[in-house]
Amino acid sequence: MEKQEMMYEGKAKQVYASEDPNLVIIHYKDDATAFNGLKKASISNKGVLNNKITTILFQQLNQRGIRTHWVETLNDRDQLCRKVSIVPLEVIVRNVVAGSMAKKFGIEEGTVLKEPVFEICYKNDELGDPMINDTHAVGLGFATRDELDQIYAITSQVNEALKEIFDQINIRLIDFKLEFGKDSEGQILLADEISPDTCRFWEKGTDKKLDKDRFRRELGDVIGAYEEIYGRLSQWVNAK
Amino acid sequence: MEKQEMMYEGKAKQVYASEDPNLVIIHYKDDATAFNGLKKASISNKGVLNNKITTILFQQLNQRGIRTHWVETLNDRDQLCRKVSIVPLEVIVRNVVAGSMAKKFGIEEGTVLKEPVFEICYKNDELGDPMINDTHAVGLGFATRDELDQIYAITSQVNEALKEIFDQINIRLIDFKLEFGKDSEGQILLADEISPDTCRFWEKGTDKKLDKDRFRRELGDVIGAYEEIYGRLSQWVNAK
Repeated sequence: MEKQEMMYEGKAKQVYASEDPNLVIIHYKDDATAFNGLKKASISNKGVLNNKITTILFQQLNQRGIRTHWVETLNDRDQLCRKVSIVPLEVIVRNVVAGSMAKKFGIEEGTVLKEPVFEICYKNDELGDPMINDTHAVGLGFATRDELDQIYAITSQVNEALKEIFDQINIRLIDFKLEFGKDSEGQILLADEISPDTCRFWEKGTDKKLDKDRFRRELGDVIGAYEEIYGRLSQWVNAK
Repeated sequence: MEKQEMMYEGKAKQVYASEDPNLVIIHYKDDATAFNGLKKASISNKGVLNNKITTILFQQLNQRGIRTHWVETLNDRDQLCRKVSIVPLEVIVRNVVAGSMAKKFGIEEGTVLKEPVFEICYKNDELGDPMINDTHAVGLGFATRDELDQIYAITSQVNEALKEIFDQINIRLIDFKLEFGKDSEGQILLADEISPDTCRFWEKGTDKKLDKDRFRRELGDVIGAYEEIYGRLSQWVNAK
């Protein structure tokens, strides 16, 4: 399957048409951004690691019956995926308070939530991806009530699956962001990626940050953290 | 019923104990604040008008079977109300886009929403009353899922009742804020006030603002707007 014209370029990935109108090729770049694009860098090999990490995780989710856009990983940086129209929402799942939620409520990072918090943000760079609620999403036409119900159901399943997987490799799943798309039949699929760019991972015991916060907060050895996550995941998959 | 010690002083009201441990006396002040207390003023007679407007509206809601904290209006500035523990949430209902929602989404003020938008904010001055969602409220213990369900059900009923009432006096109900309390048996009651301090009212036809935006935005003749709302409401009640 060969890349055709580029259809879209995001901060960390490019999307290309493929020879099949129902499939696209997603290319993982090394570019990193934070704070709504204010902080930028290139992190050598990040795209390769995120492609590999996402591949393992989407394969695991598919095995558990969760429908994702992922079809096949083509090479170090390219995935063949189902073509979807992206739902303009970011869905954030928080198992432990960190980042913007700690700031918003004046709660210490690391506070464990009794129940997971689900947040939705309207994907719009100009507006700064504002947090919204279901009535905004429905009232402004970003998603229907039925689509939101499907999205929350998949999100719960993904959280349970990821917590179980990361627990086995001694990583705490603090929070993560998902994106969803609709295929040509209008069915909701999990899209985008699941990687240290889109999750907070803390090492069990030490609470060492093994995710993009190393870049956001200048903690050093960013790529080492991504390698650590990939190393543990691939070892776990191979040992199964 | 005589006022006993002051139990709480808010921006626009004071709450006094009464001779009955299950009842409080709420005193309406002339103080006005905006922008989380950054803008302050005293608007002569505002407290009297808000007391009278709230009295009419809470009577109307009670007649429609909606449980409120209001028991009896004692005089120009004082209401006898059921004693409640306040749920630390502000519930905002939007029928038409205005104010912070217009800014947040870059949508023109006056855009009619296909379905009402309900927002909840965590009542906390220090944090700036941040907008939250149901999972925050439940996860952080501000309310239970059952309490939220009761709150949203009452909120819908209030919106329908107020839209019907204001339609009859040629006022458009743009948006409004509600607060809720729990009585000694844990039942949810509508509390606080319903007035031009807590609603946006636009005159039908002209869209002239007849609410606290005249104060926030320095539009002039603030008290005239409050008098207009009271005048139309009292005329309507008397004509029934």
